[in-house]
Amino acid sequence: MEIKEISQAVIGRLPRYYRYLGDLKDEGVERISSQELSELMKVTASQIRQDFNNFGGFGQQGYGYNVEYLYKEIGKILGLDQTHHFIIIGAGNLGQALGGYLNFERRGFIFSGMFDQNPALIGKEVRGVKVQPMEEMEAFVKNNAVDIAVLTIPKTGAVDVAEKLVSYGIKAIWNFAHVDLNVPEGIQVENVHLSDSLMKLSYNINRYDQLVAENQ
Amino acid sequence: MEIKEISQAVIGRLPRYYRYLGDLKDEGVERISSQELSELMKVTASQIRQDFNNFGGFGQQGYGYNVEYLYKEIGKILGLDQTHHFIIIGAGNLGQALGGYLNFERRGFIFSGMFDQNPALIGKEVRGVKVQPMEEMEAFVKNNAVDIAVLTIPKTGAVDVAEKLVSYGIKAIWNFAHVDLNVPEGIQVENVHLSDSLMKLSYNINRYDQLVAENQ
Repeated sequence: MEIKEISQAVIGRLPRYYRYLGDLKDEGVERISSQELSELMKVTASQIRQDFNNFGGFGQQGYGYNVEYLYKEIGKILGLDQTHHFIIIGAGNLGQALGGYLNFERRGFIFSGMFDQNPALIGKEVRGVKVQPMEEMEAFVKNNAVDIAVLTIPKTGAVDVAEKLVSYGIKAIWNFAHVDLNVPEGIQVENVHLSDSLMKLSYNINRYDQLVAENQ
Repeated sequence: MEIKEISQAVIGRLPRYYRYLGDLKDEGVERISSQELSELMKVTASQIRQDFNNFGGFGQQGYGYNVEYLYKEIGKILGLDQTHHFIIIGAGNLGQALGGYLNFERRGFIFSGMFDQNPALIGKEVRGVKVQPMEEMEAFVKNNAVDIAVLTIPKTGAVDVAEKLVSYGIKAIWNFAHVDLNVPEGIQVENVHLSDSLMKLSYNINRYDQLVAENQ
């Protein structure tokens, strides 16, 4: 099967467009030019036009974009017109934070199950969802429509748990464990490696300090 | 001042190299070729060599890289040979999760203060750090060496809090609020927009389903 993909760099920018357009819509703005959007988002107007051209362009240039239409269309491209059910593996603070976010639900991501191996957490409720022991995960995934598994467990164990989830039929993993998962083709993985992000910040702090020192 | 930067794409890949090299070191591996590293990390050997060439190349090719040396050198580039103190603004589950990570401390990121406006959370202890009211933030930042402020507060308020932090002297913000901050040049910001990441996953799920349907 040939997979003709739009680059992940473009896809990675869509949620940001979606966020800005949602804010504009909430503020009652009806139309916006690529130039205005460019100034607001601090990207070039040509980048915006190029990105949008991947999806047919979304309407006339001179006149500007219809904010509500553009917001809806990008939402559809992102699959936000559909409902996704997710479970969280790991009921620690991070898992609880993610389970608690109402914003995810507003975008169609429904929190439907939570699992942990720590007996102290079993039975605890997070936004109406009870934490279940890991042994219940298989039956839950097989008996419920679960689209996404969120991994908020330590790196040891994460690879095994991911393999199990895939064998139970999970098609997408949102991975917060600090390890790269090894999944078959067709399983979607999105990593959030928090340490990596912090190290990138650390690099930029130190590099800037060096540059200031060099230029003094 | 001219800022000669290595591309953020390269910087963004460094923490992943660092992670793999740390694992190899822990497993007792002494040398590794770019080819072996390429297979392990699933990036091309030429990408690895190009990335490393930004920093002088880290030693001979034919012989392979010295794992411990490479690990240390990349750590230095990332500023991990230095200590950074961070405070967390927002003592909810996400803030507590970040405050609780011992891994950050192992890399030299010291959790030293936590602030929230919710009276119910004031005085609560997260890994030995007491949650203080927001009013204490200014004095704390001015009287202590704080390198990084972590924002784990809702988007309303985040822009204001970031502005205040910068005016108190904060040079770097690790931003989890779902909004882009507006900071002066020289202030480093690293965003973790969790909703954006989830939407990207959602796109990939739906796009894959479409491709499968189209190819059937």
